[in-house]
Amino acid sequence: MLEPDMIPGVISAMETCRAIRRFRPEPVPNELIERVVYAATRAPSVSNGQNWAFVAVRERATKARIAALTAPTAIRNIRQILATTTSDSKRRLLEASQRLADSLAEVPVLLFVCATGVDRSAPIDARTWLGVLPAAQNALVAARSLGLGTTLATYHLHDEAGVSEVLGLPPNVLIAATIVMGWPAVPFGPVSRRPVSDVLRWDRW
Amino acid sequence: MLEPDMIPGVISAMETCRAIRRFRPEPVPNELIERVVYAATRAPSVSNGQNWAFVAVRERATKARIAALTAPTAIRNIRQILATTTSDSKRRLLEASQRLADSLAEVPVLLFVCATGVDRSAPIDARTWLGVLPAAQNALVAARSLGLGTTLATYHLHDEAGVSEVLGLPPNVLIAATIVMGWPAVPFGPVSRRPVSDVLRWDRW
Repeated sequence: MLEPDMIPGVISAMETCRAIRRFRPEPVPNELIERVVYAATRAPSVSNGQNWAFVAVRERATKARIAALTAPTAIRNIRQILATTTSDSKRRLLEASQRLADSLAEVPVLLFVCATGVDRSAPIDARTWLGVLPAAQNALVAARSLGLGTTLATYHLHDEAGVSEVLGLPPNVLIAATIVMGWPAVPFGPVSRRPVSDVLRWDRW
Repeated sequence: MLEPDMIPGVISAMETCRAIRRFRPEPVPNELIERVVYAATRAPSVSNGQNWAFVAVRERATKARIAALTAPTAIRNIRQILATTTSDSKRRLLEASQRLADSLAEVPVLLFVCATGVDRSAPIDARTWLGVLPAAQNALVAARSLGLGTTLATYHLHDEAGVSEVLGLPPNVLIAATIVMGWPAVPFGPVSRRPVSDVLRWDRW
């Protein structure tokens, strides 16, 4: 049934690509960041437009400025949700998220996945997101395959204008995703998801 | 430098995950579609919300209805761009896209990646796209690893209301991506992309 060029490691990488929120302090070599971006840019984009750009922030001072702009809102939101959360697994996720936000300035790399040539005077088009978010996912899975931990995060949404200014982005460049990346201080492990039978429909809803 | 649990096949799968637009007529077994959706749902989503659903269309009549709604616009758009395209590689891509649109009713599977719980009375939030498009990319790469060819497509955008009606989607379900999938009639091959040095910036723009 399967093709001879079947590649066995791929789904294993995906299913153990749990969000990593605690990192060892060692820096990530630039060559590995380049390898992750290489993998990201193997993703498709609408008409192969490749309207993407990546900013890899390693400088302590820049990470601290971004953390100062975004982490307080993230932490406030997490605390609000925590106050009413009774599920143990959800509490653990939220507490880990809060620890990550608390230490955002210390994470090894903040990799911003951006869309270029974006008209910011109109609502963002579906094609803009389709053009860059697949690349973000390739980055996560490729990082996992290289032993690097990641979290796909939304810190930029707490102060898009501020983070864009810190990064020096031109006005037509949109941050689509923040990827936190580094050597994991905790094991990779299986992600926790609903079963396929809950989410897959045949031929119609 | 690399971790012991490095997984070697992953980046190979990504770099040979060229869009496949010609398919052999054999159907794709349901178990493999389920495997692809399993891999898709290993992707992260905002706060692990998993607000996603997948509709796998295999029925000839349903594919024909979707093709009738969307392919004519796709073909008209392609012809308009073709009329002014001088680059040979871009012509080949457009001609392949036109062939695919012409035969959309005959492709083995149309897999619609949807976001659930979406407020359609407001512009779609960035978090909605972040919640489902990573899953779409996992589907493409997992399919590649299983020997299945895919194209990430935007047919649904040509008539969202019409396709949603054919699929019977509830009003708060948004189609985020159309994935065309089947056994490839052409070889997998390297994707063509700009070099990393063109798209990666260090610390700031």
